[in-house]
Amino acid sequence: MAAYDDLMAFQRDTMALAQVAGRLGWDQETMMPRGAADQRSDEMAAMEKVLHARRTDPRVGEWLAAIDDAALDPVGQAQMRHIRKAHARAMKVPADLAAEIAKVTSKAQGQWAQARADEDVAAFLPVLEQVVALKRREGQALADGGDVYDAMIDDYEPEMTAAELGAMFGAMRPRLVALREAVLEAEAPQAISGHFPADKQMELTAKLATTFGYDLHHGRIDKAVHPFSSGSGHDVRITTRTSELDPFNCLYSTIHEVGHACYEQNIDDAYLLTPLGGGVSMGVHESQSRIYENQLGRSAAFTGWLYGQMKDTFGDFGIADADEFYRSVNRVHEGYIRTEADEVQYNLHVMLRFDLERALMQGDLDVFDLEAAWNDRFEADFGYAVDKPSNGCLQDVHWSVGLFGYFPTYSLGNVYAGCLYQALRGAVPGLQDQLARGDLAPATGWLRDNLQTHGGLYEPAEVVERASGVAPGPEPLLEYLEAKFAGIYRL
Amino acid sequence: MAAYDDLMAFQRDTMALAQVAGRLGWDQETMMPRGAADQRSDEMAAMEKVLHARRTDPRVGEWLAAIDDAALDPVGQAQMRHIRKAHARAMKVPADLAAEIAKVTSKAQGQWAQARADEDVAAFLPVLEQVVALKRREGQALADGGDVYDAMIDDYEPEMTAAELGAMFGAMRPRLVALREAVLEAEAPQAISGHFPADKQMELTAKLATTFGYDLHHGRIDKAVHPFSSGSGHDVRITTRTSELDPFNCLYSTIHEVGHACYEQNIDDAYLLTPLGGGVSMGVHESQSRIYENQLGRSAAFTGWLYGQMKDTFGDFGIADADEFYRSVNRVHEGYIRTEADEVQYNLHVMLRFDLERALMQGDLDVFDLEAAWNDRFEADFGYAVDKPSNGCLQDVHWSVGLFGYFPTYSLGNVYAGCLYQALRGAVPGLQDQLARGDLAPATGWLRDNLQTHGGLYEPAEVVERASGVAPGPEPLLEYLEAKFAGIYRL
Repeated sequence: MAAYDDLMAFQRDTMALAQVAGRLGWDQETMMPRGAADQRSDEMAAMEKVLHARRTDPRVGEWLAAIDDAALDPVGQAQMRHIRKAHARAMKVPADLAAEIAKVTSKAQGQWAQARADEDVAAFLPVLEQVVALKRREGQALADGGDVYDAMIDDYEPEMTAAELGAMFGAMRPRLVALREAVLEAEAPQAISGHFPADKQMELTAKLATTFGYDLHHGRIDKAVHPFSSGSGHDVRITTRTSELDPFNCLYSTIHEVGHACYEQNIDDAYLLTPLGGGVSMGVHESQSRIYENQLGRSAAFTGWLYGQMKDTFGDFGIADADEFYRSVNRVHEGYIRTEADEVQYNLHVMLRFDLERALMQGDLDVFDLEAAWNDRFEADFGYAVDKPSNGCLQDVHWSVGLFGYFPTYSLGNVYAGCLYQALRGAVPGLQDQLARGDLAPATGWLRDNLQTHGGLYEPAEVVERASGVAPGPEPLLEYLEAKFAGIYRL
Repeated sequence: MAAYDDLMAFQRDTMALAQVAGRLGWDQETMMPRGAADQRSDEMAAMEKVLHARRTDPRVGEWLAAIDDAALDPVGQAQMRHIRKAHARAMKVPADLAAEIAKVTSKAQGQWAQARADEDVAAFLPVLEQVVALKRREGQALADGGDVYDAMIDDYEPEMTAAELGAMFGAMRPRLVALREAVLEAEAPQAISGHFPADKQMELTAKLATTFGYDLHHGRIDKAVHPFSSGSGHDVRITTRTSELDPFNCLYSTIHEVGHACYEQNIDDAYLLTPLGGGVSMGVHESQSRIYENQLGRSAAFTGWLYGQMKDTFGDFGIADADEFYRSVNRVHEGYIRTEADEVQYNLHVMLRFDLERALMQGDLDVFDLEAAWNDRFEADFGYAVDKPSNGCLQDVHWSVGLFGYFPTYSLGNVYAGCLYQALRGAVPGLQDQLARGDLAPATGWLRDNLQTHGGLYEPAEVVERASGVAPGPEPLLEYLEAKFAGIYRL
């Protein structure tokens, strides 16, 4: 089919250009000379214009009209599903609205950073109001009369709805609040302390990355202010950071990013530079980073091995044995910041944002009431008051840059990880023994073969269900968390 | 003028995209994971397609037709000169010929590398014959009935001709051959020897880079297999390499690349991401790298300062004093390889290539007679025979990738550097005292203000003449070389 071949050739170049733009982003965070920022923003803008023009290229519409999807094989049909969806999305949003969103969010991000530094919510709300209004207009354009917030979620988690997420989170929240309270009333494990040289952390973190299956022949590790994974296929790079007082920051952010990176590296080579050649959704992506980091990386078995590695690397660091080390790695502590939260509390942070942004998008919450709503909800779930805006509603960049519908995918990823881990334990005999000797190959191999390899071939919930054997739901995650922390805190 | 503004906005994005493509090339040589090479070639090809489509975009022709250059200020007129020229060039070469050249040179580069490794000229000549035939067709398309080789030179050195270069080189060659013979009959200076740790070379090389004015706020230094400078404006990066037995390789390649990089960094900010925002020609570019490296960097005054820096960095390395060090830095030695040649012999290597490629392009030399012609000419100028093809006609990558007309710009750069240095000595009082204390600011500042800042504003020979006060010619270079090496070799 000539139209299909032409479309796929066009698509392949578009994906290649998107990889280039992504690598430019990586360069900006790792290598770029500081004085190049202004020129770089012109370069990025030029790349964005090229990508936007390709997404709305009239030839794509002509090819799409000429292609009979039913005549294609299942892979071809999956490619078409992605391409048709992306094209429909691009056509629905008027160019002037897209340009206005880009302009206002660029301004809003700067104002958010300043407002956070100044602890001044009022300085941020006027521009946030503009962002919310523009995103609601975009959502209305996308929703075809349906739910505005659903349309936004669909950008990050296809086929998922706010109602489904709301039901899932509603079941989780009381049990997580109860677990949190029980844990914080029990005796706390010892926190790690001491001095851990950055260069030794980087050596150990590189070893952990390859232990978890990260392929340095198709990737590299650098330092950056924020850890991230970037790129698809044969060039997937990760970053980490070091704090000499807290080695877990570096080591576990690396394992987390390795989960993301392995997903991208392990997608079937046949999908390279096609719409199937990237992770299928934010939720599934997060399931991989989370299962690597938590269910595997923070398990009793694996931390037993890591304890030995830490002692080899840093010498004695004041934690008596592997069991205390396991408890220390999984220590639950009070705090305001989502990105610093432990497994027990993390989803409570996310659900708070989900409910607030859902209300903002659906017109049930005014931007000027956001801070009060945030602070009330935080105190209800965490039992203490937000002390300052940078610990409250100004802590995350997401809303300033127009990311609405993104937050819930963090918790959905945890839910997916719970389902996958349940299946993994059944499917890999001797898993705990393998983890205890630092052998991650069977576990990550199972994830590769049952989930990662498929890339965008199936819808998100479908690929999780195919791998885990159950329709995704929160029960496996909740049971895992309750059992794990009952053990650690001797509840 | 709306058409001019539209054209310049379009051009600005094109320049920004060209910067992105260039940075991708930098990444490939410095950072890219080895396993990413195949994906990278798809990414580069996609960028090239975008750039090619912009160069031949029909809107450009419409804007050009609508613009009255005479109504513009001198800067606008210079911008139009570049844009009209590039557009005319893009229109003259048929798309299928351009694609064929890209395809064949890509293949030829691989075959050249293999043939060089195998010392097998015959394996390379069939594909070189194809390259030569295609480049001659391109030259004919560009030349409008004029000289094919002139049309090619014009790509690298606008307004220069083979006849002019031939006359210049004809005047230089006998004096350089005579100087070479006299020098090699005299007593040779001591060669540097010892062990120079790579990390200390990198420290010293970074210090040298900033000493020569390289701005690390808008650049960075990394290691690569081949030293190069990459990028324009606010993001100009250089690479170097280290050999622990030969510190001059690292230090002088850095000074050379800093010359190129400072030219790009020092162009007037008003020209950023416009056709005036890059070096005006290969010859002028090379004049900057060469004057930094040789006339300044290998001067008696500066090497006196460098001798102290070397001792501070590496301790005693067996050279007794600054005078011996100066002689050692400028040691003339026999050899086959252009890139390893000293100031005396370098231009003889270039002239050999100029005469041969001119004959190839003009149809006066058959590809299958190339090796014999090379070897005859080499023996005539250097007095000994080529021992193997990798030391002879297979040593350079240029012809395999279709670079004809590029070689002479290396020597033209030296000629320009000779003119500029003559003027610099007159214009900067106390120059030798400054160099002797490692103060390069007055010299590089003069080059910045009199030449580099102009970018593409003037034609190459014009900008050199404006700075040096004389029409470019070889006499200043020859006098400089004869005096310098008479002193070093006590002729």
